[in-house]
Order: sequence, then structure tokens, then C-alpha cells
Amino acid sequence: MAEIGIILGSDSDLPKVKECFDILEQFNVPFEIIVSSAHRTPERTREWASGAAGRGIKVIIAVAGGAAHLAGVVASHTTLPVLGVPVETNVSGGLDSILSMVQMPAGVPVGVMAAGRAGGANAALFAISILSLGNESYADRLERYRKETEEKISKRNEKLNRTGYKNYTKE
Amino acid sequence: MAEIGIILGSDSDLPKVKECFDILEQFNVPFEIIVSSAHRTPERTREWASGAAGRGIKVIIAVAGGAAHLAGVVASHTTLPVLGVPVETNVSGGLDSILSMVQMPAGVPVGVMAAGRAGGANAALFAISILSLGNESYADRLERYRKETEEKISKRNEKLNRTGYKNYTKE
Amino acid sequence: MAEIGIILGSDSDLPKVKECFDILEQFNVPFEIIVSSAHRTPERTREWASGAAGRGIKVIIAVAGGAAHLAGVVASHTTLPVLGVPVETNVSGGLDSILSMVQMPAGVPVGVMAAGRAGGANAALFAISILSLGNESYADRLERYRKETEEKISKRNEKLNRTGYKNYTKE
Amino acid sequence: MAEIGIILGSDSDLPKVKECFDILEQFNVPFEIIVSSAHRTPERTREWASGAAGRGIKVIIAVAGGAAHLAGVVASHTTLPVLGVPVETNVSGGLDSILSMVQMPAGVPVGVMAAGRAGGANAALFAISILSLGNESYADRLERYRKETEEKISKRNEKLNRTGYKNYTKE
Amino acid sequence: MAEIGIILGSDSDLPKVKECFDILEQFNVPFEIIVSSAHRTPERTREWASGAAGRGIKVIIAVAGGAAHLAGVVASHTTLPVLGVPVETNVSGGLDSILSMVQMPAGVPVGVMAAGRAGGANAALFAISILSLGNESYADRLERYRKETEEKISKRNEKLNRTGYKNYTKE
Amino acid sequence: MAEIGIILGSDSDLPKVKECFDILEQFNVPFEIIVSSAHRTPERTREWASGAAGRGIKVIIAVAGGAAHLAGVVASHTTLPVLGVPVETNVSGGLDSILSMVQMPAGVPVGVMAAGRAGGANAALFAISILSLGNESYADRLERYRKETEEKISKRNEKLNRTGYKNYTKE
Amino acid sequence: MAEIGIILGSDSDLPKVKECFDILEQFNVPFEIIVSSAHRTPERTREWASGAAGRGIKVIIAVAGGAAHLAGVVASHTTLPVLGVPVETNVSGGLDSILSMVQMPAGVPVGVMAAGRAGGANAALFAISILSLGNESYADRLERYRKETEEKISKRNEKLNRTGYKNYTKE
Amino acid sequence: MAEIGIILGSDSDLPKVKECFDILEQFNVPFEIIVSSAHRTPERTREWASGAAGRGIKVIIAVAGGAAHLAGVVASHTTLPVLGVPVETNVSGGLDSILSMVQMPAGVPVGVMAAGRAGGANAALFAISILSLGNESYADRLERYRKETEEKISKRNEKLNRTGYKNYTKE
Repeated sequence: MAEIGIILGSDSDLPKVKECFDILEQFNVPFEIIVSSAHRTPERTREWASGAAGRGIKVIIAVAGGAAHLAGVVASHTTLPVLGVPVETNVSGGLDSILSMVQMPAGVPVGVMAAGRAGGANAALFAISILSLGNESYADRLERYRKETEEKISKRNEKLNRTGYKNYTKE
Repeated sequence: MAEIGIILGSDSDLPKVKECFDILEQFNVPFEIIVSSAHRTPERTREWASGAAGRGIKVIIAVAGGAAHLAGVVASHTTLPVLGVPVETNVSGGLDSILSMVQMPAGVPVGVMAAGRAGGANAALFAISILSLGNESYADRLERYRKETEEKISKRNEKLNRTGYKNYTKE
Repeated sequence: MAEIGIILGSDSDLPKVKECFDILEQFNVPFEIIVSSAHRTPERTREWASGAAGRGIKVIIAVAGGAAHLAGVVASHTTLPVLGVPVETNVSGGLDSILSMVQMPAGVPVGVMAAGRAGGANAALFAISILSLGNESYADRLERYRKETEEKISKRNEKLNRTGYKNYTKE
Repeated sequence: MAEIGIILGSDSDLPKVKECFDILEQFNVPFEIIVSSAHRTPERTREWASGAAGRGIKVIIAVAGGAAHLAGVVASHTTLPVLGVPVETNVSGGLDSILSMVQMPAGVPVGVMAAGRAGGANAALFAISILSLGNESYADRLERYRKETEEKISKRNEKLNRTGYKNYTKE
Repeated sequence: MAEIGIILGSDSDLPKVKECFDILEQFNVPFEIIVSSAHRTPERTREWASGAAGRGIKVIIAVAGGAAHLAGVVASHTTLPVLGVPVETNVSGGLDSILSMVQMPAGVPVGVMAAGRAGGANAALFAISILSLGNESYADRLERYRKETEEKISKRNEKLNRTGYKNYTKE
Repeated sequence: MAEIGIILGSDSDLPKVKECFDILEQFNVPFEIIVSSAHRTPERTREWASGAAGRGIKVIIAVAGGAAHLAGVVASHTTLPVLGVPVETNVSGGLDSILSMVQMPAGVPVGVMAAGRAGGANAALFAISILSLGNESYADRLERYRKETEEKISKRNEKLNRTGYKNYTKE
Repeated sequence: MAEIGIILGSDSDLPKVKECFDILEQFNVPFEIIVSSAHRTPERTREWASGAAGRGIKVIIAVAGGAAHLAGVVASHTTLPVLGVPVETNVSGGLDSILSMVQMPAGVPVGVMAAGRAGGANAALFAISILSLGNESYADRLERYRKETEEKISKRNEKLNRTGYKNYTKE
Repeated sequence: MAEIGIILGSDSDLPKVKECFDILEQFNVPFEIIVSSAHRTPERTREWASGAAGRGIKVIIAVAGGAAHLAGVVASHTTLPVLGVPVETNVSGGLDSILSMVQMPAGVPVGVMAAGRAGGANAALFAISILSLGNESYADRLERYRKETEEKISKRNEKLNRTGYKNYTKE
């Protein structure tokens, strides 16, 4: 049974949050995906969002760009935590998506991640940090993830020191 | 029976679009007002929007600030023309409201007016220009409105020429 | 006889609003196209705009970028509803075009659509929503268009569920 | 024992997130408050953040403006969910705070709320939505909060219908 | 006979460019003022602009805010040099006015000054620098103006050195 | 003897204002070009600017990007009219260049053109409009230029009508 | 003999960087102040800047707003380290000043501080951190300053814990 | 022993500040490089920064993009001068990085350079200008660097005059 529900405003956004799916798989977090627009399929979005808690979903990740109303609309139909991933656009690289997601009115929150790929990855990690509060194995796995990241960066520095920055960037 | 439906995200927005109400009254266009949020009262918003055409509403004016999803959410529940009035905020004087209203995805349009008071006035005038297509008395009245505006500006110039700019700005 | 008049500031904008033409054709809405600049051909623009209502035009779509004065200038010469489509530019992906179109002063409204391709499509749909008020066949067709969009998205979800997101994005 | 830890970059930010404290009290969520800067008291910030989970804290709310590094710095020292509340500044009403909080790199997420008072309120509600996953009484209370909000808006509409918008805004 | 023609989009802009009038008077440059909007009084604007050269006007100063199409519209009806003064607005302190004036398409230039009071003053000085090319007395006066400015700043520094910065700012 | 002096902050800006040179040649306006930076070669810039009037230069065009101080620095050393052409950059497509050129303090004006190619063309046309005040042949040529532009656009419309927009954009 | 030279574009900027003067006095760093504009008094600015090193000045602080060319112009006349303090303006609270100072071309650096009061304070502290490299007493004093700041924040937290946040903000 | 310490938030930033390394090598300034993130490796960053002065480092250069907290975090752990180089991003070409670095609170300064390649070069030059205060050979070398830049630009102008701008840009 899925613990995370991911809703995307368009199927063209699927490859843009690849890192989100990758991390959830890496952590063995079961998730479900739906493509549904706040504006073009409002009923489908509403049904999916309002039924999410009942289906066992614990955290929702909403991915959208431009007007990017999706995260807010989903949050209006559920009291589950809703994370927003603003998709990069031509307007200042997604400033429209960011502001539209961030500036939610008092009463219905959305937790907004970075625009673009980093946002997809971080939505997964943030969702896992929430699940970790009730699941120690996720909490342990998250600690390990941080450690592994540190070790990767250590190795890069070792290589950088060994080869020098000129050779490093050549490879 | 109301021809224009006006929906505001918050009752604190009522005085900000005073000019909208004033112009509709001046033109004797019957209108209805509802305060309903896209996020805090999604069901009320949906019912109001999806029933608007059935009640005889021909044009909808949605007033909201910040995330300002209201116009888009209303448009998702009706095929009536929806006009958006972005309320001025602290973020660049309403840049968040403007971008969130303007950047609607293909399929569900919103016609966006200026942020602030001018936007309220223009939403009324735009709605009347739509009604004018099926109602010549509105069309005539709209022509007259433009003429009256021109005459007012003529009178200001006469006064400016008569008194000089120094006295003009003193008064 | 054309019901929609489309004016573009430059012939280089023609391919940028292809979706606008496509949708109008799909709905069998007769339209006329003119290339005329607010600044380089002000007389042609004025004549075209002020004569539009007399030629039977009911809604005007103005497409322009940068200073993007065209929609406002056209609106100053007619009381027909004028929709603005801001063309994307290098300045924040069209922030200049958007703000210049949106921030019209009280008295002469323009209904502004999204910058770029979505804006072209939505201008057509918004114009049709206006025409629908006096033409039931357009209204029916518009309802159908929304349904067809929903069905397309349904099919995408079916495929997504069937193939999984990894195969879906590969295809 | 506190379930929510709130860290503010400056004591001048305390009144700006009053709604955050109000809502947490209203929901009887125990919370702790610390004033500590990412830059002026980095050790205190680090100790507080890295010890939070051990003290029983489940969600962290970080409030800061301008460079607004606080949320990110706190998130670097814990795997608990960290919510960011950007304080409004003179630069576009807090655009600097928003972007600095939102644009976190992949690996260390922050869930960002609106700039200003709405952000404070929503940080509390978002934190409660997280706690609700492991505490049904919070979940029930949250549902009730949404209902109460709806009822308040219903009453406003009743009053608006009864008195008319002119009298409504006068009061 | 006026050498400079000043056109303002609204009489509320008159006090905002007071420095423009002051400097022109100080230099004894004859000027005319008209209040005329690009959108509300397009015919008046067109007639005034297209007749300006014939009336002996040599430089035009156009003052407008928001959409701020006025300078561009005036420039479309004359080949005289047109200077634009963007009026400060709520949107980022006039970013809308600045971009709308600056981003003119190739073929019809406008020379844009700073938003606000500095812009009014500089439009006058820029206009005089143009007139100076054909009028040595203006050129001399302009040189003197720069010298006087330098002397004023010299005196401020003398006072600053004499009194110290603490007393200086107290006075 | 050159009537127009063009100064560029970098030789990499030369191709970016090609249209400026083209138009000046087309109008047979003699011009001189120098590459000199406000910051890297301040003495050269100062000497060139302060000597320009003495060499017979009547209008200066300064081309620069980023901090784009060049136009302001040149204007500080001459009372000739100085036009600024902001070069497009990565920061919002030249927003930094535009604001830095436009926001000159009272006392030392710069007349700013659009960012990018349109700005280069318009700087030439604006400079010619200034020269036209003292040279009727330039004035006549400028009128003709506008007419030719109108004719070009007429021909495009004829072709558009003849071939239809689908064939037009194919060619 | 002054070790720090402070140049302000206008005497109206003096009170805006009061904290800069306060900190330098607190650290007993001798400094000199001049009011000189990049544009209105270019010769004075040039002489002051090019003579600074010879007078024993080690670091320059340039304070300016709007076009804010001052820091860059000063840096073009000296190889001393130049710090820029952007003054807050109406355009997005100083975005014009920030971008104009920050976006210096390769070859002539300026080290830019925050817009507004924090920038003034930090320019003093940054200058002292430079002087500290050659003066241990400054270095010690700087360490102490950081400690004192930490202690102040400690005391605030003690008070906050003692009185509770409600009483704290009341006082 | 390294005099300059360079810290980069990611190894992908190494090629983006190539000019920084080139200039430091050209001036024979010994430097050390570390890849360490403010968020992913906070301990490593803290240790490196707090130990820098003890290792003989005199100036730190921090390179980061997006949230770009690195420079501020480093500055919180040392009283050495810290220079920030904002990496260009998709959000307005690095506006997020610039604002996040520039808007440091009073007490902990960062001296910010331009976004992108110019920033890398200027960080090196600014660092050298600091070292020059205690090392005359650097000071002389810096003077020479400026002279060489001037000579390069002189040669470009000679070539431009010799070949004409048309041939110049062709080559």
C-alpha cells in the first residue's frame, strides 16, 4: 500500500522529477503516481486528494509549473502534509511556479521545495523524514543516506587533492 | 437575475475592488458577490462556480492575492469567461498574484486585469464589453463612458491651461 | 464573416501562436489575421481596431512582446473585448511583455493570457467562451473540448498504470 | 516535552510569527522557542538542531529573513522535517528570504511556507499535519479547524447577503 | 513658442515631475504641458504628438506609469526625439513602467530616464542637452549647471569636515 | 567628421549592435567607434568622452552589459546627449544592465534604449532624430524610413492574405 | 591617519550608514568621509580614489543607490579593496543598487554588502577583517565582537525563557 | 603554505571558476581548494573554515549557487575576510544565488562578486588586493595587471581602427 502519493500536473513533468522516484525506490517507500491537472481535471484531482488519507497515503507530493495551482488545490482537499515541487519555466526559471506555490494563504499550507531537479529529490527526502517519525527503519536509512553523501564528497576531495583541479575537471 | 458573479478570496478584499462594484452599479448591471476561498472553502467555490451558468451568470470576476489560485480554480469548474483581479501584496506589489493568475496552462483560460484598484475597475468594464455583444444598451453606455472620460480629461486640460500647472497642483 | 480578429505585432509571432489558430479552426470559428505594429504602423492598427466592430468582429486577440503596447493601443480604439497574448522575451521569459499588458490603467481593460504557447491556445478558448454566450453550438463544443481533455488525461493515466513510469517516459 | 522546536534568527522576528504560537497553543501542541542566528551564533544553532531529535522534537520551524540561511543550516544538522518561514524584507517584500529558503540543493530539504504572517500560521498547521500522522487527536482537531474556518466564511457570506457589500465594508 | 512638449498620462502625475518643470523654467526653456492618456484619449494624444513638430516642438517628454504605453504611442506619431519618464508604481517601485518604456521594438525609439523624481529632472536636462546642439546659450547654461552642482557638493564636504558627520546629520 | 560617437565596453559587444552601425551607414551619418571600459580603461573613457564635443560629436551611444556603468560614466564627462544600450546578460536577460543604466541620479541623464538588438537599432534612430533637428535631410530620410517600414509591413500582410498563415509560416 | 576611506554618493546617505561609522569608532579605526558622486563630481571622485593609497587608506567603502556606479568608478581608479554598500531604493527595495554594484566585469572587483543598514555595519566589519590581517589588536577585537554578540543573544534567550514569549514581545 | 582558501559547494562548480584559479596561479599566490557543502557536509565545512586562519589562510573564497548559503556559513566560523562567488542558476541567471549571498545580516559580512565567470576572476583579484596591503610584490603585480589590461584594449582599438568594425567582427 502506497505511503506517498505523487500527483503531476502533466505527464511531461514525469522525467523532471526522476530523482524523486529514484530516491523513493532506493528507500523502498511504496508510492503511487497520478497525472492530474488542477484545472483540466479538477474532479479527478479532488477525488484523488480527498481519498488519499483513506487509501493510507501519508504524504502528498504535487509537481506543477507556471500557475502551479496543483499543490494548493490538493491541499484544499486533504489535511495530509502536501509538498510542492515547482517545475522550472521560462519566466525567470520558474519564479512564477515558486511564488504561486509558496504564497499560500493562512489556513492551508504547502511545503515548497526548490524548482527543478533538486526539488524532486528533496520532496522525496522530506517525505521520508516525515515517515521516519513513525518508522525507525526509514530514520536509520535517512541517517545512512546523509553519511553516504558525506563519504562521496570525501572521495571527491581525495581525488581532487590527488590529481589537482586541472586534471579533475578534465576527466 | 445577476449577470456578473464576483467571487473574492477574502472579505478583506471587498474594499479593494470598490471601483468594480461602483461601475457595475453605474451601468445597472445586476451582479452577485460571494466570499469564498479556493483553499479554505473549496466545496463552496466549486458549487458556486459550477452552478454559475445555470443561475444566468455570464461573466465571472475572481479577486485574490498571493498564491491567488481562485481565478484558476473557478475557471476549472465552468466554461464561462473568468476575469482575474490580482490583489496587491508585499511581494513586489503583487507580482506573485499577477504571475499566478496569468500563467494558466493551455486549456483553462483566465483573462487577467491589472493588480489593484485599476484592475477592479477594468474587470467591470471588460465584463460589460462582453455583455455588450448581446445587449446594445450596454454597448451604447460603454461608448458613452469612454466619451465622458475624454471630456473629463478635456476639462482638466482646460483648467491646466487656465490656471497653469503650479496653481493646478496646489488645489 | 470573421468573428475573431487577431492582430500580431510582427510576422515572426505567427508561429508562436499556432495553437490559437488551430483551436479556432477546430471550433470552426471564422477569424481574420493582420500583422500590424502599435508603433511602426499606428494608423493601420488604429483603422483596423476602430473598424473591427463594424466588420462584425466580436473579440480581438492581440499578440505582442517586449514593450507589448499593441493590446492596449488596440483597446484604446474599440470597446470590444481585447485579449492580450504576451510573447516570451529574453527579459525573464517575457516578464516585460506580461507586465506591460497587464498593468493597463482604469478605463481601458485588456484580458491577459499566459506568456507563450499556452497563452495563444487560451486566447482562442477565452474568445470562444465569450462567443458561447450568444451561440449555443460553441458552448456545447466548449464543454466537449473540456471532456475530451479529461479523457486524454484518463488515457495517459491508464497507460502510466499499465506500463509504469519508467517505461512511460522512455517511449 | 516539546514536540515542535521553533528557532528564530532574531528576537525582532517573534511578533512576526505570533499566529504560529497562537495556533500551536490552540491545538495544545507543546513547543520550545530559541533565538539563534545561523551566522552570529552558529554553535548554539548547531547544538540546538543536532540535539532536537534527542529531546523529542518531531518538527522544526525556522524563521528568518534576508539571507535567511537559518532553515538550511538547521536542516544540515538534523534529519527531522524542517519548515522555513521567510520573513518579509524590503527587497521585493521578502523575495530574497523566499528564494534563499526555497532553493536548497538536493540532499537537504526545507519545506517553505509563505513570507510573512500567513507563513507563520501555516508552519504551525503543517507541523500539526505531520504530528497528526501519529496522533489521531491532532488529526481530528485539524479537521475541525478546517470546518470552523468554513463556518466563519459562511457567516461572513450570510452577513454580506443580509447587509449588502456597502454596509459590510463600512462596519 | 514652446520648444519642449510634456505629455502626462494623468494629472496626478503633475507633482511627480515637478523637478522637470523647475529645471526648464530655471533654464528659460519654453514648454507646453498636456494631460492625455494613450488609452483613454488616444485621438487627443495622436493629434498632439503628430502636430508637435509643426508647432515648433523639438523634444517631447512623456510621463506615465504602470503599462506606461504613452511614450511609445507618442513616438509612433512623430519622429521627434521622445523621452520617457516612468512613474513609480507598487510593482517593484515602477519596474512595470520601466520595462514597458525601455523595451520598445526596433524602429521607434524612446529614451528612458530613471523612475520617479530623478527621472523628471533628468528628462529636462536631457532635453536641454539636445537643444544645446543648436543653441549655445543653453550649452553654456548646462555647463554652468554642472559646475554649480559640483560647488554645492564642495560646500557640503566643507561643512561635513568642519562639523563632523555627527553634527552634520543632526542639523 | 564623425557626428556620432559609439563607445562599447567590450569588443565582444560589437556584433550585438550591428544594426546600430547598419542604420547609421544607411543614413550616411558619419560615426566613430571606440572600445573602452568604464572600469578597465577609465582614463581612455574619460578622455574620449570629455573630448567628444570638441571633435564635433553631437550624440554619444554607449553600449555595455552587467554593471553597465559605461553610459553613466561617459555622461559624467560631457554634456552631450548620451544614449545607453544595455547588453543582454544572463540575469533576467539584461535586467541588471537595464536598471543600472536607467536609474541615473538627478543631474546626469542617460537616455536608455531596449536591451539587445532592438536597442542598438533604436540608438541609431534616436541619435538621427536628434541630428534631424539641425539637418533637414536627416529629418526627411527619417520620415522615409518610417514609410518604408510601413510599406514592408503592408507587403507582408498582402502576402499573408494571399497565401494564408499556414503557407506564410512555412516559407 | 585614516585607514578606511568612506565615500558616499549623496549626503542624504550619511544617516543610512550610521552603523558603519559607529562600528569603526567602537574599534578605534581612523577613517575619513567624503561626499562625492560618480556622475556629478567625477573629478573629485577620481582624485579622491586615485590618491587614497598614497594617503595611507587601506580599504575603501563606497555607499550609493539607484544606478550606484560609485563603487565601480572608485574601483577603476585604485587597486585597493573597495567595498560597496547598496542603498535601498523604491525599485524592489534596492535591487537596482545591488545588481549594479554586484555585476562588475572581470578585472575590477567590488565586494558587495547587503542593501541598507546591515550593509553599512558589515562594510565596517569586513574592512576591519582586512585590517586585522596586518594588525593583531584589530583581530582580537573582532573575535571579542563576535563573542559579545553571542553573549547578547544568550541573554535574550535567558530572558525569553524566564518571561515567556508573550511577555517578551510586550516589553 | 596557502594564503587563499577556496571552498566550492559542489565539484561541478570547479570549471565555472576556472578564471579564479588561473589568476591566482598567474600571480603565484598559493591557494588550497576544498569541495564542501554548507548543507551536505556541515562538519567538514565548519572544520575547514574555523581552522583556516590557523593554517595561514588570509582570505577565503566561497563558490556556491541556488540557496548559496556556503559563503555565509563559512563566514560564521571565521573572522577572515570571506568573498562570495554566486554561481549562475536558472532562476534569473543566479538572482537567487546573488540575493542569498548579498543579504547577510549585520555582524557577519560576506563580500559578494558578480555571478558567473567574472565573479570567479574578480574574487581572485579582490583577494590579491587584500594580500597586497601586506605584500608589495603583489601590489606591484596588480598594478601591472591593470596596465596590461589597458594595453590589450589599446591594441584592440588599433586593430579596430585599422581593419574597420566589419572586418574586426568577421575574424
